[in-house]
Amino acid sequence: MALIVQKYGGTSVGGIERIERVAEKVIASYHQGNQVVVVVSAMSGETNRLIDLAKAIDPRADARELDVLMSTGEQVTIALLSIALIKRGYKARSYTGSQVHIRTDSAYNKARIMDIDAARLKADLDSGVIVVVAGFQGADEHGNITTLGRGGSDTSAVALAAALKADECQIYTDVDGVYTTDPRVVPQARRLERITFEEMLEMASLGSKVLQIRSVEFAGKYNVPLRVLSSFEEGRGTLITYEEPNMEEAKIAGIAFNRDEAKLTILGVPDQPGVAYRILGPIGDANIEVDMIIQNVGADETTDFTFTVHRNDYDKAMEILKGVSRQLGAREVNGDKKIIKISLVGVGMRSHAGIASAMFKTLASEGINIKMISTSEIKISVVVDEKYLELGVRALHTAFGLDQPVAATA
Amino acid sequence: MALIVQKYGGTSVGGIERIERVAEKVIASYHQGNQVVVVVSAMSGETNRLIDLAKAIDPRADARELDVLMSTGEQVTIALLSIALIKRGYKARSYTGSQVHIRTDSAYNKARIMDIDAARLKADLDSGVIVVVAGFQGADEHGNITTLGRGGSDTSAVALAAALKADECQIYTDVDGVYTTDPRVVPQARRLERITFEEMLEMASLGSKVLQIRSVEFAGKYNVPLRVLSSFEEGRGTLITYEEPNMEEAKIAGIAFNRDEAKLTILGVPDQPGVAYRILGPIGDANIEVDMIIQNVGADETTDFTFTVHRNDYDKAMEILKGVSRQLGAREVNGDKKIIKISLVGVGMRSHAGIASAMFKTLASEGINIKMISTSEIKISVVVDEKYLELGVRALHTAFGLDQPVAATA
Repeated sequence: MALIVQKYGGTSVGGIERIERVAEKVIASYHQGNQVVVVVSAMSGETNRLIDLAKAIDPRADARELDVLMSTGEQVTIALLSIALIKRGYKARSYTGSQVHIRTDSAYNKARIMDIDAARLKADLDSGVIVVVAGFQGADEHGNITTLGRGGSDTSAVALAAALKADECQIYTDVDGVYTTDPRVVPQARRLERITFEEMLEMASLGSKVLQIRSVEFAGKYNVPLRVLSSFEEGRGTLITYEEPNMEEAKIAGIAFNRDEAKLTILGVPDQPGVAYRILGPIGDANIEVDMIIQNVGADETTDFTFTVHRNDYDKAMEILKGVSRQLGAREVNGDKKIIKISLVGVGMRSHAGIASAMFKTLASEGINIKMISTSEIKISVVVDEKYLELGVRALHTAFGLDQPVAATA
Repeated sequence: MALIVQKYGGTSVGGIERIERVAEKVIASYHQGNQVVVVVSAMSGETNRLIDLAKAIDPRADARELDVLMSTGEQVTIALLSIALIKRGYKARSYTGSQVHIRTDSAYNKARIMDIDAARLKADLDSGVIVVVAGFQGADEHGNITTLGRGGSDTSAVALAAALKADECQIYTDVDGVYTTDPRVVPQARRLERITFEEMLEMASLGSKVLQIRSVEFAGKYNVPLRVLSSFEEGRGTLITYEEPNMEEAKIAGIAFNRDEAKLTILGVPDQPGVAYRILGPIGDANIEVDMIIQNVGADETTDFTFTVHRNDYDKAMEILKGVSRQLGAREVNGDKKIIKISLVGVGMRSHAGIASAMFKTLASEGINIKMISTSEIKISVVVDEKYLELGVRALHTAFGLDQPVAATA
């Protein structure tokens, strides 16, 4: 008998009929002999409805009270799903985050889970009860209601799976798995049977928004096998595990890209210790997150410094950088908002040389000029002009053997 | 410094503007130097919306899960009211029934409050915080969410007032107090400055639906001064206390009536011990509540037995009574659905003789035939034909000096 945690997001429970369909899916898993814990989000639209009520009173509504308010969204769903399960003759029981002792810190609206007391759930599961838990929420040590922030239901599910030592944590979404890249850009994109946590983290952080990144980190940390599946279609989805692919398998798991980048450069900065901090310190103080950073020391004892930020932060970052430039006596400041980032991701890189040069060659053969390069152990990212997004991704997808096999024609 | 518990019902918090108005009222009381605990209901319509969702899945939805669902209604209101108070620069803090340890039994949908741990609220109040509590809900000893049943927010307020030893529990409603009778029937009806708990109980149980009867019982038991006021108009409302009125004051507090009565009679029952039980036992077994009961022993060793039930239960009660009649060998069964009950209520009756005869004389002089009479220590009720409702109530209202004084004309 396996213990499965299933998580259904807002779209999957976005109405009475959909909740009934989720009940059927849960029961199907139960009939396969599994113990089942279901984690649900608020019905789609509900969280926004609640926030709108609060904002109508105060656009900067108190954080503690916002959590009291928003946590009702999932509470409605757990009750309705339990009612649907009980109607079908199954024992079911709902729990709020507070009831199931999902203890968090006190950072309202973006709390982090500290621990979970799984004893009560275990007892329920052992007596054949299907347990339905409100995602996205918990309570701090004083019993104050907290929420984990948007998308936190994934994290709730993974944390429960870890606490219960579940055999698998299944995340039901509106896509049927993790793809080699975005199928809207590359029609030949393939669903991956499996992917490692590290690869998934790189894919997620690069804009493949299948899962909340925090939930993947959590799953990796506690080694909870995570599976992404569709709520609406049958299928095995994609399993995210620690296991490394075989040597024979593809070196590259997938290609991620990010359209939200913007690049800023400060040229001719007199080179001295601490210059990176003097440039990036004020940017960080303004709560602007920096992604890629490149520094070149030139011949004339000055340095050129380039970094990327989210496109929405570009104007603010540029204003700060101009001030920094004057202080440091730099020669020039420039920037570019029309860039995108393409990344190859794969743990296979560790044992395969030449992937970077193969990537650069592919791009060069398409006439795509590379503006920045950044590498990590399992990822190579390049920044290119935004007009090359589709061309670059498709070329790399084919070059690295990720395209779906074409059916043989007679 | 007084400690005041204020309760606002669903209509009073039925929208953002109304919640803002409630915030102003709460702050006004706080500025008078009071410590304030606010108990709120769900926004009007919200409880029905939630029930409709549940019923769409299962018309006989699980009771535990219904409570999980319905309790979200008040939780939304406490958050919104707290946000409105905090926006105005006041310290406010919301609590669900579970958080404030309103411990109930486990009778889902109609739980009873066992006790309240007021320590946390006391600490908040002492540090200047306005405390906002979700009415209508609590948690049982296992932490399961329970609700007190419709109207239970009044009971929550009174129970909190008792636990906190509040100086006054103020129930804000859409009427501005308790009246001598229904002003829609008698335009001369007066608002009472005060009324005793006993009188209020009789008035409430007879259909003057200003307060939940259980909350009045609770207030009486713990001697919590209760005040009924309007959310929408200024005014002192009506104070409900233990104090007896002065001897000089009116003997009668008010006139209640009930349109929901129906009368059943079984005639010529052979008189023997246990006959009342053999008649009313099957009625009670069918969950039909019996109001008035009258038994007359006739000359021929048979007895006539008359009782009243809610009009909705009439047909079912009649069917049962016919079966009982055959078993007992009674002569005849008949009934009347077109009756109403009028009651004089007043603790003054205890020290004043002749009120019953004055009542009967007044009705007789209007040609109103009395079908049943029932008396208690502070109440006299008569059943009459329903067509006499307005005539009877108005005549009694005038005869017992309850009419508003008429302004003198020049």
